[in-house]
Amino acid sequence: MKKDKLGQILDKMQEKEIQSVFLYKKENVNYVSGFNPSSFSVLLLKEDPLLLVSKMDAEESAEVSGVSVQEFKSFKDITEILTKEGISQVGLEESLPIGVCNKLKGPWKMTVTDIISQSRMIKSTEEIIQIKKAIGIAEKSIKEIEFKGKERDVAATLDYRMRMNGSHKEAFETIVASGPRSSLPHAVPSHKELETPVLIDWGAKYGNYCSDITRTMVYSERQEEIWDIVLEAQKAAIKSIVPGALVSDVDKSARDVISEYGYGDHFIHSTGHGVGLEVHELPSLSSKEEITLEKDMVVTVEPGIYIEGEFGVRIEDMVHVKKNREVLTKLPTRFTID
Amino acid sequence: MKKDKLGQILDKMQEKEIQSVFLYKKENVNYVSGFNPSSFSVLLLKEDPLLLVSKMDAEESAEVSGVSVQEFKSFKDITEILTKEGISQVGLEESLPIGVCNKLKGPWKMTVTDIISQSRMIKSTEEIIQIKKAIGIAEKSIKEIEFKGKERDVAATLDYRMRMNGSHKEAFETIVASGPRSSLPHAVPSHKELETPVLIDWGAKYGNYCSDITRTMVYSERQEEIWDIVLEAQKAAIKSIVPGALVSDVDKSARDVISEYGYGDHFIHSTGHGVGLEVHELPSLSSKEEITLEKDMVVTVEPGIYIEGEFGVRIEDMVHVKKNREVLTKLPTRFTID
Repeated sequence: MKKDKLGQILDKMQEKEIQSVFLYKKENVNYVSGFNPSSFSVLLLKEDPLLLVSKMDAEESAEVSGVSVQEFKSFKDITEILTKEGISQVGLEESLPIGVCNKLKGPWKMTVTDIISQSRMIKSTEEIIQIKKAIGIAEKSIKEIEFKGKERDVAATLDYRMRMNGSHKEAFETIVASGPRSSLPHAVPSHKELETPVLIDWGAKYGNYCSDITRTMVYSERQEEIWDIVLEAQKAAIKSIVPGALVSDVDKSARDVISEYGYGDHFIHSTGHGVGLEVHELPSLSSKEEITLEKDMVVTVEPGIYIEGEFGVRIEDMVHVKKNREVLTKLPTRFTID
Repeated sequence: MKKDKLGQILDKMQEKEIQSVFLYKKENVNYVSGFNPSSFSVLLLKEDPLLLVSKMDAEESAEVSGVSVQEFKSFKDITEILTKEGISQVGLEESLPIGVCNKLKGPWKMTVTDIISQSRMIKSTEEIIQIKKAIGIAEKSIKEIEFKGKERDVAATLDYRMRMNGSHKEAFETIVASGPRSSLPHAVPSHKELETPVLIDWGAKYGNYCSDITRTMVYSERQEEIWDIVLEAQKAAIKSIVPGALVSDVDKSARDVISEYGYGDHFIHSTGHGVGLEVHELPSLSSKEEITLEKDMVVTVEPGIYIEGEFGVRIEDMVHVKKNREVLTKLPTRFTID
């Protein structure tokens, strides 16, 4: 993590009179410390951040991490530090397990804060390079596989290719859903032989950063018709992406197109989401959110139409938010199998 | 889930005057409902359990789940149900995010409860069958790969074979750590060419149930010496597994052997853990725990010796706790590469 970013976080903490933020989420620990813990690990974010790791991670974290490291022994050590440093307010992540929260009780006030997830929305140049590499691996890999056999086998082969092409692991469980199963947006690949259309949603992880792409290969006139609508919706949403735009307006741009064609009820998820250390992070491009897009956010744009029992179509690309927005995914939208 | 198990859980809830348990952890939702959610989903456990799923999961969950299903719209729906049913105490999982907990506030008392994780410790016959299948896949797959090239490539190939052999996904991130890297118990496979010894820790998932096995392939006299000690420790721990034994005593059985040889400080984790829907679940076979082993628990036994900068050895098998304990893993302990 760049020093200026840590400085900005500390400034935000000071504004909110939070002297220390207790980080438990792996990606947040990684974000601040530069170390990706393999087991239990917490980071006490403060003027002089302290990473507490298990004995198993002690060796590696000392080498890699940019902050002070100490072996985690018990939560008592942490409350002792908070006491010693006279902390009056501790920030907690929204995702912190209540069981852990209960172990942190003390004379300080505890407040849920999204300082870190807010900070993570804006990517540094280095982070965007990692994301681009994760995209490159996903795109290279999809071109190397054959689309035949069972959905599961296609997914396994794609994942294998991503790994051999340098991905540390999949960014999420690869979706290969064909025929009527493509109408389930999160379908788990089945033991079924591929039918048409074929919807593939996949992503690689590189340097802990994720990519996330969807293509749907269509074959019939009816499928083409839906595909064209989804693409039109996606283009409208991408066009609306600019620093200063409301995420709800980006969602609306896509949703309006799909609704005009009468498929509004079949677009059953939000238009996109931020991508970084996690495949789903802020901002959500949703009608319910009020976040404003800012320079150097990276988001997916992925409208879809799902016709229950028939089929579904989704097209997903990743976009770097800036004055001249850049679609980071380079794979053709029209993707076909020979 | 079998009706009698749900009945037992409801009885336990009644004992503790908890009228409803709010389940948020995916594996707990899966355990009680039989449905493995692909996205946001919660289960309100009560006399008549209610599964709340996203629109995306509505179709599939209605088919698969054994309980009533409703589309999740907002947390208000849940607090309304709790109000309507006059609930006075709600049970929460230890892992529940505080952000979610805050949305559940109402006139009821909220208590952290481990009723579900306690119940999940004892496996049904059906669950043990799934675990055995997950073990079978992991064992078949390791025999099908070649141990050459980079650590990462070996891990990727092993994962691919598990998937092609019917595993839904890896139970956890496969570890292939060789040479000095084997001294890091949770090493991430590197781009390094395989050295010796080679430590492999891997597991498959079948029907959402996990397997977890470790083998270390040793080559030098010094490595053999350490390997023999670890095996002796593992045998001692396995021998101590019987319904009624304290988990801390099982840990001690392994630790004593390793300490006798003077390597106590190099056994830097607990002796094992429960395995089921999660690869790490209760009970932990740790010196700090006071749980008593019961019939039909399934645990790993995995002592290890890690000599920093030199190498590490771990041997891990899975054991079904019963009067005549059964080692479920059938792969020879002495595992060599040609």
